[in-house]
Amino acid sequence: MVENTKNLYWHQPLVTVKDRRDLYGFRSCVIWFTGLPSSGKSTIANALCRELHSKRIFCYVLDGDNIRHGLNKDLGFSPDGRKENIRRIGEVARLFVDAGLIVMVAFISPQRDDRLQARHLVANGEFIEVFVKCDPEECGKRDPKGMYQKARSGIVKEFTGVSAPYEEPENPEIVLDTATMPVKDCVQRMLDFLIQNGYIKES
Amino acid sequence: MVENTKNLYWHQPLVTVKDRRDLYGFRSCVIWFTGLPSSGKSTIANALCRELHSKRIFCYVLDGDNIRHGLNKDLGFSPDGRKENIRRIGEVARLFVDAGLIVMVAFISPQRDDRLQARHLVANGEFIEVFVKCDPEECGKRDPKGMYQKARSGIVKEFTGVSAPYEEPENPEIVLDTATMPVKDCVQRMLDFLIQNGYIKES
Repeated sequence: MVENTKNLYWHQPLVTVKDRRDLYGFRSCVIWFTGLPSSGKSTIANALCRELHSKRIFCYVLDGDNIRHGLNKDLGFSPDGRKENIRRIGEVARLFVDAGLIVMVAFISPQRDDRLQARHLVANGEFIEVFVKCDPEECGKRDPKGMYQKARSGIVKEFTGVSAPYEEPENPEIVLDTATMPVKDCVQRMLDFLIQNGYIKES
Repeated sequence: MVENTKNLYWHQPLVTVKDRRDLYGFRSCVIWFTGLPSSGKSTIANALCRELHSKRIFCYVLDGDNIRHGLNKDLGFSPDGRKENIRRIGEVARLFVDAGLIVMVAFISPQRDDRLQARHLVANGEFIEVFVKCDPEECGKRDPKGMYQKARSGIVKEFTGVSAPYEEPENPEIVLDTATMPVKDCVQRMLDFLIQNGYIKES
């Protein structure tokens, strides 16, 4: 970029994602958690974020709490609204990767093609799809708001896993079976993956 | 957050913005540059970002390059489209503040109430409005794409500063007069402000 002010030309290079990775000492990426309601996506994402933070690895979680009430508060739960919800989340995740952070996305994101679209927004190797696997019955037992029960009795319509489809990932980078693995084991599995694949260094 | 998996209750605190500020050693905020096209917003934001980066202060610039072609590519330049453009940028800026970064926004953002809405998304003291002041004639001289000329001859419609209104900030935290101040002085002025107001430490 060249700036012309009072005959002063000043060449000012942008800060690139490479500059950031060199400074921060880890490789930014999207970790995309997908799975049924109450399968454990947000819990695992936040637990992993806490672990990464303690290792001085800068990270952030995008989930219903900070997206649906803010950026996407204009969107409903129609098919178009859900699609646009995931599109915007993918775009915001891309910005965070560019900013040098490890960004975790914890949304049901039931449609395979929506997740694929988000994957294609970033470079090869910058998108880690994590299938948080858990059968609906087990999810329903954990469900703090009783949404599964309401869905089964028809009070809540189009509930993913009961009355709306969930398309399982075909080739996720990682599968976490939360019906059998405790949260801390899921987090350790994620850390191992990040180290083995060169995203973060062993500490 | 309490997770119930296989009778294991595991309390997992979230990483808060305070945790991030404590780790990073600076106070995250939004620096919102507003001004006419070609007034110097993006140039100053990127130059400031480069300086902050060299001081190990994590920062990011939101501007036309990474927003209009991505998150907001579905929006046009109608009054509603422009309003929604600024609303979403404010929401994304809020996420970056929560993630602990200094985020710079470089958009014309001609409407006072749109900027006020963005200010109210973050806490008191987390929003620094910077009026990048420059008269339209001087802006037109710098304009690399000849947009001012096209606007004056009517080829481009509703161009801010020529055929569409720009509402100057009434109480911006900072005014940078780029008709008289070189970019490096503007950057120094910003750094001084950030130090004097406790956002970053002197180094």
